[in-house]
Amino acid sequence: MANPINLDDKLQRFSEHWTPKVIAEINDYQVKLVKIVGEFVWHQHDDTDELFVCLKGEMSIEMPSDKVSLKAGELFVVPKGMRHKPSADQECEVMLIEPKGVTNTGDTSSDRTAPNDQWI
Amino acid sequence: MANPINLDDKLQRFSEHWTPKVIAEINDYQVKLVKIVGEFVWHQHDDTDELFVCLKGEMSIEMPSDKVSLKAGELFVVPKGMRHKPSADQECEVMLIEPKGVTNTGDTSSDRTAPNDQWI
Repeated sequence: MANPINLDDKLQRFSEHWTPKVIAEINDYQVKLVKIVGEFVWHQHDDTDELFVCLKGEMSIEMPSDKVSLKAGELFVVPKGMRHKPSADQECEVMLIEPKGVTNTGDTSSDRTAPNDQWI
Repeated sequence: MANPINLDDKLQRFSEHWTPKVIAEINDYQVKLVKIVGEFVWHQHDDTDELFVCLKGEMSIEMPSDKVSLKAGELFVVPKGMRHKPSADQECEVMLIEPKGVTNTGDTSSDRTAPNDQWI
């Protein structure tokens, strides 16, 4: 019997915020889990769309002239090149799907920039 | 305010089985929802991995020398070229992520072959 990847199990393996962890690959795309709280930094991904799936809690994604709020069971695709700033008033657990090599802070670099390809 | 994509809302929009419905695109990948029950046909996707995320219920994926069982909150990536046969004893709701253009029955064609690119 092969083992499935259990989201709750993977989420229990880390506690830090804004540091995406890779749990699976589909071709050259990665499935990542991230825990977020507070406000992230404004950034954009010039070469790719980015899928956010809210697994637990609530989060928002602010864009220059729009905003979307996600609760568990909701998803949103931030289009390529769209500046955005994720945030969450309380801790929120999120699944991301995007091409391998995408950095969490996109075109910006700061102490919020997390290393890529961190598998759990 | 932009609208998120709500999985439960989308799942209420169709009732047929084994007919994947597209709910979002990430670059040239699609997020699909499908309801399954019973046994599907053996098939493979020669050019791509395929991500199964079990949203509700339980399902299995049989492979030539392996088998994986998924319940809600669990996922599995069927590798490119791997023959597989999904099944579910009772109705199960599944999210699929794979490149645009992937046909549900892969290298086979039958009355189970569903049209592609059916958005809901």
